[in-house]
Amino acid sequence: MGSVLIDNIGSLVTNDPALGEGALGLVADAALVLADGRVAWAGPRSKVPEGAARDRFDAGGRAVIPGFVDSHAHLVFAGDRTAEFEARMSGRPYTAGGIRTTVAATREATDDALRANVRRLVAEALRSGTTTIECKSGYGLTVGDEARSLRLAAEHTDEVTYLGAHVVPPEYAGDPDAYVDLVRGPMLDACAPYAKWIDVFCDRGAFDGDQTRAILAEGKRRGLVPRVHAGQLQPGPGVAIAVELGAASADHVTHLSDSDVEALASGDTVATLLPGAEFSTRSTYPDARRLIDAGATVALAADCNPGSSYTTNIPFCVALAVRDMNLTPAEAVWAATLGGARALRRTDIGHLAPGARADIVLLNAPSHVHLSYRPGVPLIARVWKNGELVVT
Amino acid sequence: MGSVLIDNIGSLVTNDPALGEGALGLVADAALVLADGRVAWAGPRSKVPEGAARDRFDAGGRAVIPGFVDSHAHLVFAGDRTAEFEARMSGRPYTAGGIRTTVAATREATDDALRANVRRLVAEALRSGTTTIECKSGYGLTVGDEARSLRLAAEHTDEVTYLGAHVVPPEYAGDPDAYVDLVRGPMLDACAPYAKWIDVFCDRGAFDGDQTRAILAEGKRRGLVPRVHAGQLQPGPGVAIAVELGAASADHVTHLSDSDVEALASGDTVATLLPGAEFSTRSTYPDARRLIDAGATVALAADCNPGSSYTTNIPFCVALAVRDMNLTPAEAVWAATLGGARALRRTDIGHLAPGARADIVLLNAPSHVHLSYRPGVPLIARVWKNGELVVT
Ligand SMILES: [Zn+2]
Ligand SMILES: [Zn+2]
Repeated sequence: MGSVLIDNIGSLVTNDPALGEGALGLVADAALVLADGRVAWAGPRSKVPEGAARDRFDAGGRAVIPGFVDSHAHLVFAGDRTAEFEARMSGRPYTAGGIRTTVAATREATDDALRANVRRLVAEALRSGTTTIECKSGYGLTVGDEARSLRLAAEHTDEVTYLGAHVVPPEYAGDPDAYVDLVRGPMLDACAPYAKWIDVFCDRGAFDGDQTRAILAEGKRRGLVPRVHAGQLQPGPGVAIAVELGAASADHVTHLSDSDVEALASGDTVATLLPGAEFSTRSTYPDARRLIDAGATVALAADCNPGSSYTTNIPFCVALAVRDMNLTPAEAVWAATLGGARALRRTDIGHLAPGARADIVLLNAPSHVHLSYRPGVPLIARVWKNGELVVT
Repeated sequence: MGSVLIDNIGSLVTNDPALGEGALGLVADAALVLADGRVAWAGPRSKVPEGAARDRFDAGGRAVIPGFVDSHAHLVFAGDRTAEFEARMSGRPYTAGGIRTTVAATREATDDALRANVRRLVAEALRSGTTTIECKSGYGLTVGDEARSLRLAAEHTDEVTYLGAHVVPPEYAGDPDAYVDLVRGPMLDACAPYAKWIDVFCDRGAFDGDQTRAILAEGKRRGLVPRVHAGQLQPGPGVAIAVELGAASADHVTHLSDSDVEALASGDTVATLLPGAEFSTRSTYPDARRLIDAGATVALAADCNPGSSYTTNIPFCVALAVRDMNLTPAEAVWAATLGGARALRRTDIGHLAPGARADIVLLNAPSHVHLSYRPGVPLIARVWKNGELVVT
């Protein structure tokens, strides 16, 4: 791989306070040198090392930020749920089955159909600046279909999460504990080889605290690191369990008790906000200020899924988090980049210090603030992944 | 100009109930024939006339809708207000001057700089599906600068609105009535030749009811048709005056009394909602259901301006209107197309019946519902304007 100097950057977000101003490590009038897929140098233009790179790209005074790290996505599915969305937003009743509709369609789909869906959404996310995306199973809910979902996810990302405990499938409706035994037994056996993470939807209508703890503990014994869907629909034990088990992230956290906030602030479990879900279900947004002020680490992710947040667009989530969750424009950008990396326990992404992966976004704007100041406007001009220009 | 058959349309929004289902005039498995910049034929694929067009474009089963009609925009300005936005969203005080900051920068800008700004935003809007955009003056606030703003706006759109009564400029702070006399006297003389519409910001800190009525009445005498910024910041007489004077549109209508709703429902003044403004100022959204249920005509526009809604993106506004204003997905699409046309009193745009202008958007989605179901995702695949493919 060659080397390239990205020159004439009006404003550079490095997310390294040692390199620039504030938590974003902002450098004005900056340059960046990429070599062999990594950041080789970052700093003010006036100090670029001589002969630093073979090629030069002129950023034209625009802003450069790290690629977005989307730490929460459900991409292995078939079908969509347009009619359900339309009915919900029109105030009409809709009796068909929510997640179970997607489970049925996913089980029936061919590998190629599922693969095409993942590829389509990963590409869409990349075009909007997402250079790392996590991907969960959870629409198979049989040993074979969960393992297949993870195998297909692993073709597109390293961040693969086993979510057999998404909902109890209809065939176990009469005996949910038998399903829990399956999830932490034979299904885990089949899935562990493909996954890095294990996740449970701990909420009303899904899994309770004891079930969640049992599944995650077994996953941990098999080398998977926990993450938890916690407190989306109602207050519950999800956050406490996440912190207790050393989960990398507690996600949604729409409903948070004071002790949940304290637990997140004192442990190293990241609080991952998913404003797209509150947006598309007309739910009340959690207050991110409460988490930040307490000292918790906050990440921002899109939660792409066909039921409750059918978006891959992190700039949209940044704008929502500023408008409706009380993050500042800078905090929202941090949460969508380095925050996401923390939620995936990755040190090589989410920032642009020398040695970091060269996952980089050029904005059609002079500042990262424009991601919230210009809501809805596609501002992604260029994307580099591993030092390669992949969106032009 | 040639003719083209857009074939294999999965779902076509015609906005003509005579052509299809419901208010959107939806046709499944449809085709569209364009000739000489107009729609020549629209209907089911199975009925396309033989040899209808020279060229064929395959829509691949995706959705086609009329181009968006954005009836409210402030594009003639210089500078931006990033720091003010960032301060507001970070809860920090910001004392510099709001609109007046933009007025100072606009007065100092060259014609070419202003022209470039309008061109940039019109192009950005077009890429997101807006084929007609209104444009107001209002950042000049001198006879020369208002006339210049309108002249430059008229280079880019036919829908030009004289908004000398945006705010009272600082030099008239001690004598606002003298400014009103200027606006309805010499400034109107200089501006009327370039404009089709006259608008007043009737609200707290801007112009009161008597001033609004006096300015609009004089504009009407000069052949300009009124539109009114009404009830954005607080309840006021704006809507009543708009209906009384036969304004084409009352815009914002964030604060509405019962009698305002009745007036809008009984008159032919369109209620134009601007959710981008509520979004970017963290204001409470008006309830569009109340207007629709009363029988008012509702339009949706982006209100692009550097202070309170720096977006050109109508799909974003559609998603917000569904989420936060209680429009159904179908009503929001109607409001952003035919609703906008009604607000501009245009019969040739906003729909796709034969004879309409061939202003057409192809979505990267099977249905218009995806504009709200997939919030933030850029779904605009192709745009035709006057029958020419202008976005590819
Ligand atoms: Zn999820
Ligand atoms: Zn306005």
